[in-house]
Amino acid sequence: MSNFFSLKFLNNELIFIDQTKLPLVEDYITTDNYERIAEAIEKLEIRGAPAIGVAAAYGLALSVKGLTQNMDKKFNIAYERLVKTRPTAVNLFWALDSIKKTYEAKKNSASLFYLLLNNAIQIHKNDINQCEAIAKNGVELLNANSTILTHCNTGKLATGGEGTAFNIIRKGYELGKVKFVYADETRPLLQGSRLTAFELSKANIPFKILVDSAAALLISQKNIDAVIVGADRIASNGDTANKIGTLNLALLCKNFDIPFYIAAPESTIDTSIISGDDIVIEMRSVDELSIINGTRITKSDYTAFTPAFDVTPNELISAIITDKKVNKPPYNFNVINY
Amino acid sequence: MSNFFSLKFLNNELIFIDQTKLPLVEDYITTDNYERIAEAIEKLEIRGAPAIGVAAAYGLALSVKGLTQNMDKKFNIAYERLVKTRPTAVNLFWALDSIKKTYEAKKNSASLFYLLLNNAIQIHKNDINQCEAIAKNGVELLNANSTILTHCNTGKLATGGEGTAFNIIRKGYELGKVKFVYADETRPLLQGSRLTAFELSKANIPFKILVDSAAALLISQKNIDAVIVGADRIASNGDTANKIGTLNLALLCKNFDIPFYIAAPESTIDTSIISGDDIVIEMRSVDELSIINGTRITKSDYTAFTPAFDVTPNELISAIITDKKVNKPPYNFNVINY
Repeated sequence: MSNFFSLKFLNNELIFIDQTKLPLVEDYITTDNYERIAEAIEKLEIRGAPAIGVAAAYGLALSVKGLTQNMDKKFNIAYERLVKTRPTAVNLFWALDSIKKTYEAKKNSASLFYLLLNNAIQIHKNDINQCEAIAKNGVELLNANSTILTHCNTGKLATGGEGTAFNIIRKGYELGKVKFVYADETRPLLQGSRLTAFELSKANIPFKILVDSAAALLISQKNIDAVIVGADRIASNGDTANKIGTLNLALLCKNFDIPFYIAAPESTIDTSIISGDDIVIEMRSVDELSIINGTRITKSDYTAFTPAFDVTPNELISAIITDKKVNKPPYNFNVINY
Repeated sequence: MSNFFSLKFLNNELIFIDQTKLPLVEDYITTDNYERIAEAIEKLEIRGAPAIGVAAAYGLALSVKGLTQNMDKKFNIAYERLVKTRPTAVNLFWALDSIKKTYEAKKNSASLFYLLLNNAIQIHKNDINQCEAIAKNGVELLNANSTILTHCNTGKLATGGEGTAFNIIRKGYELGKVKFVYADETRPLLQGSRLTAFELSKANIPFKILVDSAAALLISQKNIDAVIVGADRIASNGDTANKIGTLNLALLCKNFDIPFYIAAPESTIDTSIISGDDIVIEMRSVDELSIINGTRITKSDYTAFTPAFDVTPNELISAIITDKKVNKPPYNFNVINY
């Protein structure tokens, strides 16, 4: 089976895989147009907070390619376009602001495009390194021949590197610490059965997908040695917002006495919030329940409870694995690390 | 909004709603052909163990309508055809055997068809009465203005009457004991977001659907007063097999100290098995995860963990509501009731 990549910058163009068509079709799109990159982020052709940040940085750098006049105006239009593609991904804003800072400092330089590009490449490289460091830290927690359950997608497709939670699984498999993986399908958007399954298959790691509600039976049969998932945002006390369904898994792990691990770059820790109580849960469209892959399955006028994520309280988390270290409870990120 | 029915016998024909098209299209099929009824059960146009039993009984009775010769042969062909439509529904076998017994006793009677039909009508009426009795017993457990979470479909569509768990909800709503319902979508076959939502909507009961994995967040926010679900099979000690995802809800209820109720006719109690350990869990096709409403969403060669149901241990069940009574733990059905 041929391998794949998620994002690559080559010959002054960005090449990315269209995630909306995965796993049925592996379609790569090549562009040097920031507008096309903005569209890709909006349409979820590129998704996963770190991957979005990297792609947007390349896009903003590309906006000045070949420009000789009206530079400020055109750069700002591109910035405004890219910054509005997704509402909540902190990496997006952080990456764009980093490029903007370089722009402001160097806008009179003849090699402005290459300076911005170098900045974008640096953001990409940092992401790759963070993914490696997370994997290195995370595998230390695994025993030989573990069976791991994961949720949503946290691999190459979600990051500029090899992934967060997924990269621990991948490295664990290479080292003989992981022997089998179960991937929740992750309703409503099926990132597990579509994207994580695709990555596991490409990595030749033995796996099965399952409906989210079957995790209880699976864990009750004692088939799972650890659950590892990613994070959208981590509060100072360790409370963690992640894809809807994460809290459910954490409660199952507590009930059956199985380790439950969060893996994320340290930048996911938001020391401006004390606890999960400060995290507002985004509600999504009812269409995500009533339409699947363009096919309507139930009526649009049936109302729905549609949280995008849930918050797992710190006491359910066995460890928070970052690129810096393995954090064990009690978590107190603003006192200990900052 | 017009109302609906699931199964009706009128002018010597069976009329049933095609459940595969719900809720988008309300299509009724009228037939006096047992072969068409067998097909309907196979294709899940008719589903739900009690509803299957009732439809099969009518089908077998219809097989002798107008027959004057080769009676035994033709009856047995019809019996063999209907008995093979679904592998596990006990109601199917029980209903067909009941009609067969009447056939053997009365096959020389001039009014054989009407005798068999009366038997089928009696099976249907018993089902209606059991549904009523379950509702009457179940509502006693509910406080005023409760919010209920349910899973799968246990209403009119699943039975010959008004439902099991669903009928408690319906009657509770009429009596002011239920004010709001959450319906798990129930992957993989979406009986919740398709069928239970359809029934709630028709009954004008306020509700929301949700992905199965969002139940943890919902319950953690203390929005749920009780969970009520049906049962496929109940062991002597109260261990209960039901749709995949039921065990997950029972564990959530335990964690958040919320009552968890099972509702089913007493015939669901299988006193031939001591505990849930004796229940073999049926595995379903991977297609149920990878194809939704005819649309392929992921690759067919990704293997899957596909249990049709799980077993909830008796200690997680606050009460088992049957048509006879409300059973409280400890459950010991073969000593106490039989």
